[in-house]
Amino acid sequence: MIWNKEAECMSREELREIQLKKLQKIVKRAYENVPYYNKKYTELGVFPEDIETLEDINKLPFTTKDDLREGYPFGMFAVPPKEIVEVHSSSGTTGKPVVSGYTRKDLDDWSEIMARGLNMMGIHEEDIIQNTHGYGLFTGGFGVHYGAQKIGSIVVPISTGQTRRQIEIMKDFGTTTLIFTPSYGLYLAEVAKEEGIDPKSVGLKAIGFGAEMWTEEMRKKIENDFNAPAFNIYGLTELMGPGIAVECSSQNGLHISEDYFLPEIIDPNTGKQLEEGKKGELVLTNLEREGMPIIRFRTKDITSLHYDKCECTRTFVKMDRITGRSDDMIKVKGVAIFPSQIEKALLKIDSIEPHYQIIVTRPHLMDEIEVKVEASPDIFFDEVKEMINIKKKIEDYIENEIGLRVKVSLVEPKSIPRSEGKAVRVIDKRDLH
Amino acid sequence: MIWNKEAECMSREELREIQLKKLQKIVKRAYENVPYYNKKYTELGVFPEDIETLEDINKLPFTTKDDLREGYPFGMFAVPPKEIVEVHSSSGTTGKPVVSGYTRKDLDDWSEIMARGLNMMGIHEEDIIQNTHGYGLFTGGFGVHYGAQKIGSIVVPISTGQTRRQIEIMKDFGTTTLIFTPSYGLYLAEVAKEEGIDPKSVGLKAIGFGAEMWTEEMRKKIENDFNAPAFNIYGLTELMGPGIAVECSSQNGLHISEDYFLPEIIDPNTGKQLEEGKKGELVLTNLEREGMPIIRFRTKDITSLHYDKCECTRTFVKMDRITGRSDDMIKVKGVAIFPSQIEKALLKIDSIEPHYQIIVTRPHLMDEIEVKVEASPDIFFDEVKEMINIKKKIEDYIENEIGLRVKVSLVEPKSIPRSEGKAVRVIDKRDLH
Repeated sequence: MIWNKEAECMSREELREIQLKKLQKIVKRAYENVPYYNKKYTELGVFPEDIETLEDINKLPFTTKDDLREGYPFGMFAVPPKEIVEVHSSSGTTGKPVVSGYTRKDLDDWSEIMARGLNMMGIHEEDIIQNTHGYGLFTGGFGVHYGAQKIGSIVVPISTGQTRRQIEIMKDFGTTTLIFTPSYGLYLAEVAKEEGIDPKSVGLKAIGFGAEMWTEEMRKKIENDFNAPAFNIYGLTELMGPGIAVECSSQNGLHISEDYFLPEIIDPNTGKQLEEGKKGELVLTNLEREGMPIIRFRTKDITSLHYDKCECTRTFVKMDRITGRSDDMIKVKGVAIFPSQIEKALLKIDSIEPHYQIIVTRPHLMDEIEVKVEASPDIFFDEVKEMINIKKKIEDYIENEIGLRVKVSLVEPKSIPRSEGKAVRVIDKRDLH
Repeated sequence: MIWNKEAECMSREELREIQLKKLQKIVKRAYENVPYYNKKYTELGVFPEDIETLEDINKLPFTTKDDLREGYPFGMFAVPPKEIVEVHSSSGTTGKPVVSGYTRKDLDDWSEIMARGLNMMGIHEEDIIQNTHGYGLFTGGFGVHYGAQKIGSIVVPISTGQTRRQIEIMKDFGTTTLIFTPSYGLYLAEVAKEEGIDPKSVGLKAIGFGAEMWTEEMRKKIENDFNAPAFNIYGLTELMGPGIAVECSSQNGLHISEDYFLPEIIDPNTGKQLEEGKKGELVLTNLEREGMPIIRFRTKDITSLHYDKCECTRTFVKMDRITGRSDDMIKVKGVAIFPSQIEKALLKIDSIEPHYQIIVTRPHLMDEIEVKVEASPDIFFDEVKEMINIKKKIEDYIENEIGLRVKVSLVEPKSIPRSEGKAVRVIDKRDLH
């Protein structure tokens, strides 16, 4: 069963027609109600009536996180305050925070897209969803919450932290679905084992993943730990929150709810649209949003789009899982490196744990990367010779992924700090200013 | 304007008629669907058809927190899991946690009672509500959230913690309403002043208080700090969450939504109902709840009920603010003492801060109370003679409240740990087992 078959399975022609109408409407609304768009479009001499085809979106300028920051707090709202019912915000750890505003209809739409996503994961009204995403200004918790309520399943809004209690509740309530960030999921499995509970014994039906970068190898480890399929959930606060795209049962890409979001892939350097299947930066446009319509937002997320038929019969385009961020990228010795590449290499090796940290330094004018990796308890107290072999093996595997030789240090099990939210993977000690 | 005039202003006769019908229905539903009630009522030989008048509620046994704990996790649910959409839980710090389950209609009802409450506080759709109550399994955050959405005001679901960010957002967003626990409110004001921001300058319109005991003096301090009226919000997870009773503009008692909850006051020792105006333990019965109907719940909260006319024209009964809990009560030298009494005494004295801790010991077979109180910075470095005078004054004031002489220690400003949730007021070091 598909949550909204009429929408999710419509033909490409019909969809494009609907998208065009919605795009024309939202560009007009943004131009008329948001000073930012009005000014920018006027300066560039591009106006709502210039959007005659979907391709005409190329005439419109991009919107960046910095643009949104400049509108802080409510400058991007397209409706008067009395129509806004909820406000979320990014953490603002890398600058002024970005505020996201929602009307009642926007919240209904958010519930709808997340309900579609949970349905793709096989969730029904009988399921018990333990939502370990944080609630608060962060959108992670609420997106899943609203979607679960729309489906009518039981949501346990436990939020992040209290890991031992999470495990107790999982067992006691008979949780069928866990929602977590990959790093918290690995931590949860680890703590459960410490407590003498096999995560497999919980009898999970599905796992929803989000808010963090991950690799197929990491997914395999988590699916194996919990003996349940893990599905990728994508979203970002600026455009709505989690649920913008979710993986279906074929687990090879995320269906974007294209009746709500218009996706493009661009070359991050030139800003030019790339053709189907090419890897580049994802650009998203709200097609329905009342409270804060965002047009051509540069997500900085690196992915590609695929329009071929999916076995699940949904016709919405599929995006690959995010393999990097245009600004997470570390440039070392001129080579662009993503933490996901290091991770991919590490997950191929049995005798280490998937906990790591990348430390970048520039001791003698030359960049150096050190990757700290936790040895598994079985091998940590083994012969030094054995340790040296594993270290060399990791260095080989990483070199194979990134094309550079790095220094690997094997560290004691559990010595790398666990995070309960997003893991800190890269420590850049270079003075790059 | 009253949120739901038809309900909130109906005549006592009409209300009693509605209450009786709802009581009969819910007792029948509980008896037929919840093994706990079925067993207990059968044992006592009391059956749904025995409820012919509202007074017949006296025939039914009480439900205690321990009863709910025995049903952990879902034993008290009256509907199949597929009808439950959300689950909350108490923290379980004092034993097995209590789980509370909601159907979709229960969540709508919760939104309705909290919307009535926010309306009593003068909140409209233009208001910006900064909700510092924690989200998660705790009901505090969600109750206010759902009510605010029903009203259509803007909810900023920031949750507890990140105090400096709270202050920044208050200023930047133009928050008109703050929701906090009294102790967190005091802390928030203190941190704002440290940051050089006068909390008065935020221009708050209203404050909603909850989840903690407080005194009129404490309210005055907070109202003075923020220059805004502070309203009491009452609720408990077992019956629903915050919103069961809220204070209206006359600020002298909380209107209980009597079409959803049937209140009684009993003598905590004999279990007998007390007459109007008498202080005793509040007992509440759900009149509408589908997911988990709770009948005659002993809240352990000490208050009294007043049926006289309110100037706001609402006809729902008013309960006094909670002045103690039957199990928070400290028995010292045979005298029953509530932390609220100590607090009341302290708030009368200018040269000290409203931060305190009560330490109970039994050094030589006799109970002793020490009250640690923070001196205000102005006087802390004064002459010792002055300090001794203040100390004596506090001891006099406390003796006046509780009838016992206690030892007071004046401690350095900011030396008593601040809490971001419920304050720890009593440290009982006696071995009472």
